[in-house]
Amino acid sequence: MAGPLYTARPGLDDIVIGDSAISLVAGETGGLTYRGYDIQDLAVETPYESVVHLLLAGSPPAEHPPAELVRALAARRTLPPEAQHVRDALDPVTPPMDALRTLISALGNGQYPYPPTVEQGYELIARAPTLLAGFVRRSRRQPLVEPDPSLGHVANYLWMLSGVRPTTEQVRALEGYFILLADHGMNASTFALRVVLSTNSDLFAGATAAMAALKGPIHGGAPARVAEMLDAIGTAERAGSWIAERLAKKELLYGFGHRAYKTDDPRAVRLHAIAREVADRRRLELAERVEEEALAALRRARPNARLFTNVEYYSAVVLEAVGLPRELFTPTFALARTTGWVAHALEQSVANRLIRPDVRYTGPTGLRWPRPGSPPT
Amino acid sequence: MAGPLYTARPGLDDIVIGDSAISLVAGETGGLTYRGYDIQDLAVETPYESVVHLLLAGSPPAEHPPAELVRALAARRTLPPEAQHVRDALDPVTPPMDALRTLISALGNGQYPYPPTVEQGYELIARAPTLLAGFVRRSRRQPLVEPDPSLGHVANYLWMLSGVRPTTEQVRALEGYFILLADHGMNASTFALRVVLSTNSDLFAGATAAMAALKGPIHGGAPARVAEMLDAIGTAERAGSWIAERLAKKELLYGFGHRAYKTDDPRAVRLHAIAREVADRRRLELAERVEEEALAALRRARPNARLFTNVEYYSAVVLEAVGLPRELFTPTFALARTTGWVAHALEQSVANRLIRPDVRYTGPTGLRWPRPGSPPT
Repeated sequence: MAGPLYTARPGLDDIVIGDSAISLVAGETGGLTYRGYDIQDLAVETPYESVVHLLLAGSPPAEHPPAELVRALAARRTLPPEAQHVRDALDPVTPPMDALRTLISALGNGQYPYPPTVEQGYELIARAPTLLAGFVRRSRRQPLVEPDPSLGHVANYLWMLSGVRPTTEQVRALEGYFILLADHGMNASTFALRVVLSTNSDLFAGATAAMAALKGPIHGGAPARVAEMLDAIGTAERAGSWIAERLAKKELLYGFGHRAYKTDDPRAVRLHAIAREVADRRRLELAERVEEEALAALRRARPNARLFTNVEYYSAVVLEAVGLPRELFTPTFALARTTGWVAHALEQSVANRLIRPDVRYTGPTGLRWPRPGSPPT
Repeated sequence: MAGPLYTARPGLDDIVIGDSAISLVAGETGGLTYRGYDIQDLAVETPYESVVHLLLAGSPPAEHPPAELVRALAARRTLPPEAQHVRDALDPVTPPMDALRTLISALGNGQYPYPPTVEQGYELIARAPTLLAGFVRRSRRQPLVEPDPSLGHVANYLWMLSGVRPTTEQVRALEGYFILLADHGMNASTFALRVVLSTNSDLFAGATAAMAALKGPIHGGAPARVAEMLDAIGTAERAGSWIAERLAKKELLYGFGHRAYKTDDPRAVRLHAIAREVADRRRLELAERVEEEALAALRRARPNARLFTNVEYYSAVVLEAVGLPRELFTPTFALARTTGWVAHALEQSVANRLIRPDVRYTGPTGLRWPRPGSPPT
């Protein structure tokens, strides 16, 4: 309470809010580790459930995938009738990201008290894909596809969405994506969740707030714009002129620059490798040419800015390659990130303290309120 | 980006996150002003709509109540069918605070893009009471009560809840409460909303996150516990011994202490005055005796702590006096605070920057991931 105040820079990027032992974002060197393990190693042939174990328990499982955790998630996928009712009542034109926020909020119906537990976390991680896939199929007037307990977490998500068995290649690519997006330090959605948990509010309330933040295009809401940009450019040959025109009009290019990284975003590097395995050859060539031309043009325009391809760029290429429509890019990001949110909720609750910063008041003071009936001052 | 990092104290109470011209919490002197006007003046015979005008427009209206704003809110009270469907689909046993969060989230169905506007704010402020009252009546199996455009914002809330015309005394008391709780600087729910808006996510997403934070007992979720404590004590004569016993068992007393105030909470002072006007005489005597004994005992136990009656204490007395059941204490706080949230969302969007603080990583580094198939390390 006592003691001097410190005025933060806008956006709080100079403020260390506390300790965390979950992920390390090494912005200068382009590294990202979960519990000390490099994501470049994690995101190769690892089941998502192994990374759920790593992030929540703090250590690798004894087997891959961890059989007990796989069963725990699979057993929780089916929705209780109350959640189905809300899903079916939602306006089908609701954007899926808003719908998933409302549905996660509705899961928090008083049954999951503070403090958060690993079991509560499993409920959130396991049910979020069922909520999203069910809402999407219902809004398309397609019959629902029940979760299949014989499928892993990521394969089952694709199955519930499409009603078609995903290929090994699709599952492997999306599993890599889920792992790469599972956590990322004190990003805005995770921070919103921590602010909520700091009041001793519950995990589902926290995840609802995180969903609210992840929606914003400055955070998670923009990967679809990369795909739209690639469509607008159309062919690799047009990349140079399209980008030059765009920049001349002072319009944005999507998929470049991230506050945390002063070099290649390690997730973009790995997602590019996954895209090479799974994407349509012409789409990949287009994406690679646009990336090359865009970085060159951006660096010519702002020689001192350290601009690199960010996570959204190859996310868009990978997500479309596994068959996801654009309106599901950000909600799919959210599904991957639920694991990180649970890890942060558990960590926040260990040494919790209300997060309540200060502001500098810059308005008028000492004014006299015109009482009702008296003429305004 | 560049520049030194500053390690905040847990809870960020030493961090000034930026400028605000909305409310000034003077913690040392026990003052609270909205746009420069003292709440002690505002919360006497002022219609809530006048304070909505003050907080959103930044200046008092030309007339009380402001006719145009009264019409704007009244015209927006009726729910669109999509919101009614979600209300009717919610599990009736859902705690009302969780239900209201889900319903506010469902209002955000893609129709209210960033940046927030005053009109969007009117929608939120006007519809939140209709959502809450409708959910509560439905969960009690009572017929819905349509909003009455001839009633002011606060009177109409009581009407929709009870189906009975509230008395002038009840409306005046609850109007005072709504005004006193309408804003309070950078509290945790408002901060959660600002984090969400900083990603360029929308007002309804922000308000959903704020609802998630306000639920926590460390923030807005505890006033019902004051009423339970008064019930447990029962009569004024038992206050001294009950409190002594409680403190001897190291158990908490509710309604005392607030991080922001080192003297009387100005809202508690005014709510006490309102309680004197509206509360049952014996309940008031009980509350006053418990307050007196509790403060004396707490100060004996911790002579150096500056402990005062906080806003929750007489909130509980006032809210029960106007006929609200305990499970609606915190949701009613939320209804009052929607106006502050809208004001902060509008202010945040003017000079917006992504709020993304840093953390100090304290976990292991440089570990080798055991590839699937290989034995664990």
